[in-house]
Amino acid sequence: AVRALVAPLHEADLGALIELLGHEARPKLVELMGAEFDFLALTEVGETTREDILEEVPVETLAEAMLELESDDAVALLEMLEPKEQAQVLEALPAHERVVLRRSLEAAEGTAGRLMQTTLVAVPPFWTAGEVLDFFRATEPDVLPDNFFEVFVVDPGYRLLGTVFLDALVRAHPKTLVEDIMQADRRRVRFDEEGEEVARMFERYNLVSVPVVDEAERLVGVITIDDVVDVIQEAASEEIKALGGVNPHEELTDSFWWIVRSRFVWLFVNLGTAFLAASVLKSFENQLQQMVALAVLAPIVASQGGNSATQTMTVTVRALATRQLSRANALRIIFRELGTGALNGAAFGLITGLVAANWFENVGLGQVMALAMLTNLTAGALGGILVPMLFDRLNIDPAVSSSAFVTTVTDVTGYGSFLGIATLWFRLG
Amino acid sequence: AVRALVAPLHEADLGALIELLGHEARPKLVELMGAEFDFLALTEVGETTREDILEEVPVETLAEAMLELESDDAVALLEMLEPKEQAQVLEALPAHERVVLRRSLEAAEGTAGRLMQTTLVAVPPFWTAGEVLDFFRATEPDVLPDNFFEVFVVDPGYRLLGTVFLDALVRAHPKTLVEDIMQADRRRVRFDEEGEEVARMFERYNLVSVPVVDEAERLVGVITIDDVVDVIQEAASEEIKALGGVNPHEELTDSFWWIVRSRFVWLFVNLGTAFLAASVLKSFENQLQQMVALAVLAPIVASQGGNSATQTMTVTVRALATRQLSRANALRIIFRELGTGALNGAAFGLITGLVAANWFENVGLGQVMALAMLTNLTAGALGGILVPMLFDRLNIDPAVSSSAFVTTVTDVTGYGSFLGIATLWFRLG
Ligand SMILES: [Mg+2]
Ligand SMILES: [Mg+2]
Ligand SMILES: [Mg+2]
Ligand SMILES: [Mg+2]
Ligand SMILES: [Mg+2]
Ligand SMILES: [Mg+2]
Ligand SMILES: [Mg+2]
Ligand SMILES: [Mg+2]
Ligand SMILES: [Mg+2]
Ligand SMILES: [Mg+2]
Ligand SMILES: [Mg+2]
Ligand SMILES: [Mg+2]
Ligand SMILES: [Mg+2]
Repeated sequence: AVRALVAPLHEADLGALIELLGHEARPKLVELMGAEFDFLALTEVGETTREDILEEVPVETLAEAMLELESDDAVALLEMLEPKEQAQVLEALPAHERVVLRRSLEAAEGTAGRLMQTTLVAVPPFWTAGEVLDFFRATEPDVLPDNFFEVFVVDPGYRLLGTVFLDALVRAHPKTLVEDIMQADRRRVRFDEEGEEVARMFERYNLVSVPVVDEAERLVGVITIDDVVDVIQEAASEEIKALGGVNPHEELTDSFWWIVRSRFVWLFVNLGTAFLAASVLKSFENQLQQMVALAVLAPIVASQGGNSATQTMTVTVRALATRQLSRANALRIIFRELGTGALNGAAFGLITGLVAANWFENVGLGQVMALAMLTNLTAGALGGILVPMLFDRLNIDPAVSSSAFVTTVTDVTGYGSFLGIATLWFRLG
Repeated sequence: AVRALVAPLHEADLGALIELLGHEARPKLVELMGAEFDFLALTEVGETTREDILEEVPVETLAEAMLELESDDAVALLEMLEPKEQAQVLEALPAHERVVLRRSLEAAEGTAGRLMQTTLVAVPPFWTAGEVLDFFRATEPDVLPDNFFEVFVVDPGYRLLGTVFLDALVRAHPKTLVEDIMQADRRRVRFDEEGEEVARMFERYNLVSVPVVDEAERLVGVITIDDVVDVIQEAASEEIKALGGVNPHEELTDSFWWIVRSRFVWLFVNLGTAFLAASVLKSFENQLQQMVALAVLAPIVASQGGNSATQTMTVTVRALATRQLSRANALRIIFRELGTGALNGAAFGLITGLVAANWFENVGLGQVMALAMLTNLTAGALGGILVPMLFDRLNIDPAVSSSAFVTTVTDVTGYGSFLGIATLWFRLG
């Protein structure tokens, strides 16, 4: 009964169904469906779920599934296996499939070599459009890719000469030579190019597929937009999680203990910075005792600075990720953020100064508050832009590492400037 | 000289170049390039830049540009114009183009009707594959779309019957009827569907294009993946900015004053919540005076709770945006987050309790700290998941509105529980 309901589902819907199941039920569903299980569904679930299931599936079943899948999807499953199991599955495959999959697996994780599929159509430049069409009609459907948008033109050494999109092919007169309708300056990517760099290229140039070449410009595969969309979504999710202090690889389907541990790590780092800020407060213990209003107002200075710096940091991290921030405009943006911080610092200095003066009926307190607020929002703007830019220059992901540093800047500057200025102003200490 | 350098650029590179220019230089470049300016570049820049330029371009030039563009790109420019100017440009166009563009513009902003292009190929079901190919070869290239992946099959009333992908067309025998190779259950979207919903469909089902139909199932256009990729990126950027307290529509090219104002608004809202938290501190003024260590430690409780709640909130907002969080798993995730918060609350209660007891040589203070930390991280987990879920249920964007509420919960609970427990424990007051 389950089989009859589940078998006709689109792989993406089947994937979503699997994700809703508990840890133990996931492999059971696969077992239950037997040969009718569409392993393509596993390319549509999170990594944790994929691992959950692949661990339980016998090697022979996996090898059979590999033959049904296109190479990029097969690789997406193979890369989740233990090295030993992976070798066993590869051994069980015919030589040609084994060689192709091994080559992809040798590419570093997340590179073009892992994303590409190797089933593609390549023709010599001296064929005519009509000959290409005849070739399609004469070829077993199984040998052709499931969906394709272009025909690649290669020389005898399989070097990529150009490409003919199917819409150009069907528009061409049957006698036209392929080399006369091919697009010779076709954008291509190297086997070892980073996946996110490939995604940016698709995005910028509105591509639907791109040929992958090796170091000798030989055609080795093709990357299609549907897989790039997944890379784009994944990168966005990782950036959002990193900025929120969550492990970029945490998924909704991860186990309770894994999540508790991974959240703990980041909170532990932040606790260090919180004690650092508290030790600034502690060094003003006398002043706090003499004037308890300072203890009430200091967190406002710190928090307003933290929020303002987070705005700047968010904009900076996003602009770095989308490559909108570069050397060409860095200086302009730094000055703009500094100006924004200083101006809003002045505005909130005025507002909070007036409120503080009235709340505690102490004009001096209002003046101290105003100065500290201006100082902290200016410092926060500087930290908010320079910290992520520095991390980016050092090749450290700015989304992951910036926020702890930036809020430390604003906590320490906020407490330090407010209590320091108050000490001088009221001659406390 | 500028012209010779700029004219051969890809529209995306030209767009990037324009973005690097200042506010005043942008329209000047367009003027300088005259008829050689590729208006397609304006679909590759931010909205602010697009407005900057379109304001300066004369109506006649715009009308000419519209004829060069595909309908979706023309609409993307037209929708940025003032109503009066928009009407003038439309008036200057031939009747057919005017009708088509008006229909798209009548669709609500961000819907499928705005994203679609109207140039497409539709054939009757009784044509053969060979006849379709002959039709392509006989048709003026200008009448066909620039790039297309499928041929739509329609009945005499233009109702969508199905679709034939070009790769299926070229594989088919020339005598095969279109209706025998068409995919009849082709996914389609309604004219008035939300763009982000369309994007999720592309993503989930790995689509490259999708037909758009009106309320009578009549084919009115087609949405292609390159435009959907922009929708996906835009949605991710908006979510990231909203979570960072930045106006989701802020762009790197926005003017200084616009940015200062928009940042101010959000900081002002947060200032309100900061004063709310401060008033909790103020209500314990006596206690703070009697035991200044409380003033040093209270911000640690608040900040640790805020960070933990932000983790939960980030995961929740992302899961809501990707539709991974639904009624089917909501309860499980709520309990998991609550458990994570409580467990990490206990862990950090222990750690900070020990540190506090040693730092201030006061065992009682450590015990109070431990209890307050447990309370605040548990409350933060509840707030972090329930607040965004509630906003989502109320159709308010949870990315925009959650963080101010959630950190208010942890500030108020943090200060309140720590100082409240301390008051009881040490009989202060
Ligand atoms: Mg994981
Ligand atoms: Mg296949
Ligand atoms: Mg684009
Ligand atoms: Mg693929
Ligand atoms: Mg896929
Ligand atoms: Mg706050
Ligand atoms: Mg704007
Ligand atoms: Mg055109
Ligand atoms: Mg377009
Ligand atoms: Mg997908
Ligand atoms: Mg389009
Ligand atoms: Mg575009
Ligand atoms: Mg903090």
